[in-house]
Amino acid sequence: MKIEELKTPAFLIDLPRLKANVQMMKARAQKNSVTLRPHVKTHKTVEIAKMQTSAEAPGITVSTLAEARFYQKAGFNDITYAFPITANKLSEAAGLNADLQVFNILLDQPQTQSAVEAYGRQHGIKFNVFLKVDCGYHRAGVDPSKPESVQFAHRLAASGFIVFKGILTHAGHSYHCSNPAEIVAVAKQERDLMAQFADRLQENGIACESISVGSTPTAMHAPDWQGVTEIRPGNYVFFDKFQADIGSCRRQEVAATVLTTVVAHYPAHNQMLIDAGALALSKDLGADHLGREIVFGTVRNHPQLRIFSISQEHGLITANDPLAFEKHPVGSLLRIIPNHSCLTAALFPKYHVVDEDQVVDEWTPMRGW
Amino acid sequence: MKIEELKTPAFLIDLPRLKANVQMMKARAQKNSVTLRPHVKTHKTVEIAKMQTSAEAPGITVSTLAEARFYQKAGFNDITYAFPITANKLSEAAGLNADLQVFNILLDQPQTQSAVEAYGRQHGIKFNVFLKVDCGYHRAGVDPSKPESVQFAHRLAASGFIVFKGILTHAGHSYHCSNPAEIVAVAKQERDLMAQFADRLQENGIACESISVGSTPTAMHAPDWQGVTEIRPGNYVFFDKFQADIGSCRRQEVAATVLTTVVAHYPAHNQMLIDAGALALSKDLGADHLGREIVFGTVRNHPQLRIFSISQEHGLITANDPLAFEKHPVGSLLRIIPNHSCLTAALFPKYHVVDEDQVVDEWTPMRGW
Repeated sequence: MKIEELKTPAFLIDLPRLKANVQMMKARAQKNSVTLRPHVKTHKTVEIAKMQTSAEAPGITVSTLAEARFYQKAGFNDITYAFPITANKLSEAAGLNADLQVFNILLDQPQTQSAVEAYGRQHGIKFNVFLKVDCGYHRAGVDPSKPESVQFAHRLAASGFIVFKGILTHAGHSYHCSNPAEIVAVAKQERDLMAQFADRLQENGIACESISVGSTPTAMHAPDWQGVTEIRPGNYVFFDKFQADIGSCRRQEVAATVLTTVVAHYPAHNQMLIDAGALALSKDLGADHLGREIVFGTVRNHPQLRIFSISQEHGLITANDPLAFEKHPVGSLLRIIPNHSCLTAALFPKYHVVDEDQVVDEWTPMRGW
Repeated sequence: MKIEELKTPAFLIDLPRLKANVQMMKARAQKNSVTLRPHVKTHKTVEIAKMQTSAEAPGITVSTLAEARFYQKAGFNDITYAFPITANKLSEAAGLNADLQVFNILLDQPQTQSAVEAYGRQHGIKFNVFLKVDCGYHRAGVDPSKPESVQFAHRLAASGFIVFKGILTHAGHSYHCSNPAEIVAVAKQERDLMAQFADRLQENGIACESISVGSTPTAMHAPDWQGVTEIRPGNYVFFDKFQADIGSCRRQEVAATVLTTVVAHYPAHNQMLIDAGALALSKDLGADHLGREIVFGTVRNHPQLRIFSISQEHGLITANDPLAFEKHPVGSLLRIIPNHSCLTAALFPKYHVVDEDQVVDEWTPMRGW
């Protein structure tokens, strides 16, 4: 089937580009002697996760327990659930712990540690636990500069009902950067804070089997990962407009687009209507911190077109100059590079895998919690 | 099952509230002698669509052809596809036309009319067509003040390959209002422009079987619908923070909430982490035109809590004053009134129907295109 025969809107994955991105990150990890444990929340498919992993590096990172179960059923055996656990999720986590060779959870709250230990005591299991560290993003994690964070790690390591695996962080503040130089600075901060915290734990007799970092921007720009053992980027398989805008990737490296039809011309308002709205693109604003005009994605090969407004199924395009309507007749197709590929991908029941103008495969992502 | 036993995040529908909203709009339509053809894109379930319709008013409005097929299979027989058709969707539309008693499509582009007629001629079918009218929203539709719009209607009515049904508009600019008085003004504009355009068509010998308007704000505040035959509100079944903020409904009328768990406390940053992020709430900014601080929903019964940041699975709450952490212990539950219930609902594979603290049912919405 050809791309032009697809129903619109459709989520397209450029297969050669995807493969190149997957190989690029594998090579970066290998060159820097760190384990790549990709975050699969970006795509949530078995097919891409298989491409990203190998017999030597079989581990993946997930964002929900439902993802963990989906991948366990698909044969994956080494999973980190990279969201702080809560007591109401322990029973489901215990099921995964029983069915997986390696299942790691995150903690950063003392009271949740107590709940995990109580659960372990009652059910005779030991969870593998990472201490979640805040390396500057201030979304989650303990402050590595505080003595109580060392004490927390000590309590985890000393617990008879927990296997302490190490420390884990996500430098999400790399998404606030404006250029590669700023990303390099965050990557160094992420690396150094974690290496130093691990040293401090070591001085206190606490061994970290794993020192885990990761965000796509820092994974792309870290000069090295001295003192780090594992990286967990996810977005790099697709990239998106955001990553291109902050210099995390080049525009031509983006592997995901949304195929849409030009539905109508409205010359009186210098507008075109497309059939990709908020349910096909997501309402992510992209890199709005850069102070540029807000658009909901960019049209591939037509950067002058601005998707300035979206509602549930409607997208509106305009341009600063009069639109060249004759170039985009009603019924013609456009491909939109999404602002945030993770959120956009999550909106589609299936992905269409393409190579040049051919649809070569169809993949079904999982969803839900 | 009790609400507190649900996995989080979960999408909750308050059943008594939903029923009250459904009845309220039925009563408004009946009192004003207009047909209610609810837009089901808000919920995309069979259960709610059945509540909204009746033997006397069996018609529904959908936003995608996949929705139309879903409802056809569920026994619905009278459907308006309220998005301008394009040539590449005609074959699928023809299948629906064959399987439904009534199937209406929208046109506002002369070249698409030609495609519809050519398709009809070739396949021996006549589509029911509404002329889509722009009543001031400027998203889609023809300008009713222009002579060429009358000519367009004339060509539709005169076509041997089309059944001209009438005119249809959506006063989406009611979502730019700040208060009920402004909504009343938009509702009058929507009503009057359509009634006048229908009169003008009548003077030109063009009869409109249906004069269709609709948006939840205008449906809530129209003083009457003189000259209108049909209304198509959708959001009113759930309402949301947006509707409450612009005065389209009262806060206590909102029937949809997202259940979330308090995952962590970060007193150093006056923050709490919850497990409802962008995939549970959507990144809709709500009524940002009101100039208030941007939040991603409001916590029911705790208006002082501000959901100021969301990423894929993480939500962050703060407050202007120091957070009362002791009131919201780690592991406790919160219910979030979403900014935009249509986009939020679309993110959930299933809805949990609740009455007081009991989960009384589970409904599965359709999705995709």
